[in-house]
Amino acid sequence: MPLPRATTLAHRILADQIPEGSCVVDATVGNGHDTEFLATLVGDSGRVHGFDVQLAALQSAKERLRAAGLDHRVRWHHGGHESLADQVDDPLRAVMFNLGYLPGGDHALITTAATTLRACSSASVLLVEGGVLSIVLYRGHPGGAEEAQAVETWILGLDAAHWSVARYSPLGRRREAPSLLLASKEPRLA
Amino acid sequence: MPLPRATTLAHRILADQIPEGSCVVDATVGNGHDTEFLATLVGDSGRVHGFDVQLAALQSAKERLRAAGLDHRVRWHHGGHESLADQVDDPLRAVMFNLGYLPGGDHALITTAATTLRACSSASVLLVEGGVLSIVLYRGHPGGAEEAQAVETWILGLDAAHWSVARYSPLGRRREAPSLLLASKEPRLA
Repeated sequence: MPLPRATTLAHRILADQIPEGSCVVDATVGNGHDTEFLATLVGDSGRVHGFDVQLAALQSAKERLRAAGLDHRVRWHHGGHESLADQVDDPLRAVMFNLGYLPGGDHALITTAATTLRACSSASVLLVEGGVLSIVLYRGHPGGAEEAQAVETWILGLDAAHWSVARYSPLGRRREAPSLLLASKEPRLA
Repeated sequence: MPLPRATTLAHRILADQIPEGSCVVDATVGNGHDTEFLATLVGDSGRVHGFDVQLAALQSAKERLRAAGLDHRVRWHHGGHESLADQVDDPLRAVMFNLGYLPGGDHALITTAATTLRACSSASVLLVEGGVLSIVLYRGHPGGAEEAQAVETWILGLDAAHWSVARYSPLGRRREAPSLLLASKEPRLA
């Protein structure tokens, strides 16, 4: 069996981090794969906020969630995730990013470092203690390596006393395969 | 919930990789934690080979496995894992290493790069196609960083056409926490 992809590993790890009733964000809805995963975890008492700039992506993701009977758990936001702080003020248990372009979509429409970092920064504020930020990074497309580097630099700049950070990355021949960055906001002692 | 430790993540990933009936190796038995995990997975039709240089560790691990009703699935080898190729000639589905010293044991007794690399090299030959090598590395003790670097260099030297490799590592403040290296032997096309 092959080693898990970054996207698969993100699901494995987040499944333990998101109890029913949580409020979470899918910052890059795309095909809705992560949205569906999150909607399953949060249950009927929870909420997923889903962001995408591409209306066609949102519509097909909505269709996917409707087919799974989960669309009532999702609030859809047609717009970039950099508007996260304006659109959401619930305390968040998890925020997921799957960067790059939409598979099967317009490859010229990519996430970029400036808006990604603005969204990450908002996410870091909105996350509850014990909450987790999960970011899948792609280096293979033009601009991907720069965005990945910017996100890594940003994440290493988080207050080390209150965040723990880890990375899962393919090495060698597969070093351009997606990697996963995780940051967990640690509870502050009273 | 904190991010998973390297040892926890190794178990999560290997649980999908080791079907019942497999033959596997715990190259560093220590307290028997990995041995018990492996013995549970392989079932009564499988086999775990467990290596340790410390007789006291082997004895307490045996006791642990006996208490769990799993000791009949384990063949114990009192000796260094560098003798792997002499002791085992079964095709292996997985080989686990948890390097460094035995917690609660003699901290002067550590694994070292030379013998670790000899064992890794034997493991890479004995693994079946689809088999996986899992190595938890510690940088915090004297000699740890050098051993970790030697193992990483070795693993990146595996034939890229037939191996995929990944690393899970804590970053920032926790960068001396254990990291996990994984190498999966890919099936050769006919």
